[in-house]
Amino acid sequence: MKLLDGAVAAVDHGGSLGRARALFPHAPQPFVDLSTGINPHSYPLFELPATALSRLPEAARLRELTDVAASVYGAPSAANVAAAPGTQILLPRVASLVKPGKALVLGPTYAEHSRAAAIAGHAAAEVDDFEALAAADIAIIVNPNNPDGRVVEREDLLRLAGKLRANGGLLVVDEAFMDVGPRAQSLAGDVEQGGIVVLRSFGKFFGLAGLRLGFALADALTVERLEAQFGPWAVAGPALEYGIRALADTDWQAGMRRRLSEDAARLDALFDRFGVPVAGGTTLFRYVSLPDAAGLFSALGERGVLLRHFSDRPHVLRGGLPGEDEEWRRLESALADWASRRDDAAREIKR
Amino acid sequence: MKLLDGAVAAVDHGGSLGRARALFPHAPQPFVDLSTGINPHSYPLFELPATALSRLPEAARLRELTDVAASVYGAPSAANVAAAPGTQILLPRVASLVKPGKALVLGPTYAEHSRAAAIAGHAAAEVDDFEALAAADIAIIVNPNNPDGRVVEREDLLRLAGKLRANGGLLVVDEAFMDVGPRAQSLAGDVEQGGIVVLRSFGKFFGLAGLRLGFALADALTVERLEAQFGPWAVAGPALEYGIRALADTDWQAGMRRRLSEDAARLDALFDRFGVPVAGGTTLFRYVSLPDAAGLFSALGERGVLLRHFSDRPHVLRGGLPGEDEEWRRLESALADWASRRDDAAREIKR
Repeated sequence: MKLLDGAVAAVDHGGSLGRARALFPHAPQPFVDLSTGINPHSYPLFELPATALSRLPEAARLRELTDVAASVYGAPSAANVAAAPGTQILLPRVASLVKPGKALVLGPTYAEHSRAAAIAGHAAAEVDDFEALAAADIAIIVNPNNPDGRVVEREDLLRLAGKLRANGGLLVVDEAFMDVGPRAQSLAGDVEQGGIVVLRSFGKFFGLAGLRLGFALADALTVERLEAQFGPWAVAGPALEYGIRALADTDWQAGMRRRLSEDAARLDALFDRFGVPVAGGTTLFRYVSLPDAAGLFSALGERGVLLRHFSDRPHVLRGGLPGEDEEWRRLESALADWASRRDDAAREIKR
Repeated sequence: MKLLDGAVAAVDHGGSLGRARALFPHAPQPFVDLSTGINPHSYPLFELPATALSRLPEAARLRELTDVAASVYGAPSAANVAAAPGTQILLPRVASLVKPGKALVLGPTYAEHSRAAAIAGHAAAEVDDFEALAAADIAIIVNPNNPDGRVVEREDLLRLAGKLRANGGLLVVDEAFMDVGPRAQSLAGDVEQGGIVVLRSFGKFFGLAGLRLGFALADALTVERLEAQFGPWAVAGPALEYGIRALADTDWQAGMRRRLSEDAARLDALFDRFGVPVAGGTTLFRYVSLPDAAGLFSALGERGVLLRHFSDRPHVLRGGLPGEDEEWRRLESALADWASRRDDAAREIKR
C-alpha cells in the first residue's frame, strides 16, 4: 500500500500543449498530441443558438440531457443522473458523500482520484489488490482502467459494493472510457440499490473535452445531494446542446465504436512493427510497456509526437489514437527514426 | 432575524422560460424576459476555434484569463483570482472555507447564499441590520444588492472584515452587479489582507450567462484552496475564450456602462409614466415597489412580459432592461393596458 501524503498537490496530466512546448522546444509544430485518451474524431460541430450563450441554461433542457444520458448509459431513470461541468469537478463532491475515513484506490490509475479523496478529508492510499478494497470507507476503481485497460467484472464489483454498503461505505466506479466497452461490465444499471456512484465522461468518447460535461449515476437521493452542491445552471449552454444531440445519436456512437476499434488495431500493428510491445489499453488509448519507455517518449517528443509518460513508472507509456492521415504518417516516421537509432546502437554494442 | 430552516430546498429564480410558459400559458410568445438582471446586449458573438470544444482547456489560457480578470476587477494579482464555471457553483465551496458555524446574510437578497451556507453546514440566517453581521462566522453581503440596489460602502465593509478576521471569520461580498458600479466601493483590491472573498460574475454584465463563468477573488492561499476543489479544466473552452476577449475589451465595457445607464433611465421614465414607483436597483435591473405588485406581475405576464416577483415579498418586483425596440414597445403597451384597467377600476370605486 502506497500512502499518498502529497496527494493534494497538483497532478501532472496529458493534453497540455504549453507543457509540451516547454519539454520539447525544438519539436516541429503543430504537435501530434497523443498524450490523452480523447477521441480525435469529435462529434460533428454545429452552430449553437445564440441563446445557448446568452441565456441562463433552462431547467427543462437539463432534464432532456439527464433523460438521454440515463437512456444511453443504461441508468434506471433520469433521477439517477447528476450532470456536472466535467467529471473532474465531481470527484471531491463524490468523495465527500462519505464522512472522512479510509479511501482506497485500485492503482495504478488516474491520479486525481487520490487527490480528490484527500481533499475530502480521507486518508487516501492506492492498493494493487482488488480484494483489499473491501476494507475501505470509500473504494475507487477506474473501469476499464486508465492507463492499462484492466477490466473488473460487474459481478465482482457488485459483490464489493455489497460489502462496502453493509458498513456504510461507498463504491465509486469511474467509467470514463466505458463508452468503448466492455459495456456489459458497467454498473450504470445497478446504482439505484445504493452505495454505488458511477462516473461517466462526455468529452472523451465524443472528442469534446473542452465543453466540460460529466455525469454521476447514483441512487436518486445521492443524485439530489450532488445536485444541491452544484446548484442550478451547473451545465453550460454549449455543453447542454452538444450533450443532448450527441448522446441521442446512437448511430454515430455505434459507427465511432467500430472506427476506434479499427484505429486501435492499426496503432497496435504500427507499434508492433517497430518492436514496441502493447500491453493493454482501450480503443481510445493504448498502453505500452518497454524498458526504454523514457527514451521512446523523448525521441517522439522531439519529433513533435506526444505520448503520455508517468513520472513514477518509467517503463510504461500511454498513446492516444492519431486522427488525420498526416498524424499517422508523423507517428510512423518518428517511430522509424527511433527504432533505427535503437538498432544502430545495438549493433555498436555487439561489435 | 429570520431562520432559514428550509434553505437547502431549491430556490425559485428568474430566467426560466419553462416556468414562464407554465405560469402564463396563453401569453403571446416569444416572451419579453425581464425576469433577470442579465444584460440583453451581449458581448458580440464570435466563432470559436474548434479546439475550444475538442481539446482540454489549456493551463496557459486559464492564466491569461485570471490575469485579465485581476486587471479589470482591480485585484492585486492573478494569484488572487480563482476562475470557476459560474459564481453559483462557487457558493458552497466559499461557505466551506470556514468550519460550520453561524452564517449571516444581509437580506433580503439573492436566496442562494443562505442555501449554500446551509449546505456547507452553517446555521444560516438573514439579518436586515449591517452591524449584526459582526457576530457571524461567515457574513455575506451582495453589493450592490440584488434586488434593491442597496450599496454598502467599502470603508464599512473593511471595518466589518477586520472584526470578522480577528475571530477567524470570513466576509463574502458578492459583487455580481459591480461591473455597473459603484466600482469605488469594490473590495477587489483589498482581498490580499485575508478574511475576504469577493465574488464576480461574468455572465450578467457581458450578457453571456449560458457560458458559466465566475470568479472568486481572495488572498492567494484561499485561491489555492478553492482551485484545489475544482481541479484542472474547471472553466470550459468557450468560457475561456469569451472571458479573455471580453474582459480585455475595456472600450466595450465603458460604452456598455453608458448605454445601460441611459437604458435604465429610460426604463425609470416608462415606469414613472404609468405610476409604477422605482425604489432602487442597478443599471442592469430596476426595483419597483407598489401595493399591487402581484397584479402588475400577472397583468404583464399575461401579455408576455416577464418581471421577477418574490413569493415572500408580494409588494416588490424586479425588472431587467428590455433589449430590442420591439421589447420596449411590448413593455410599454402592456404597462399602458394595466394602467388603464387600474384607472377604470379606480373610477368604478369612486362612482
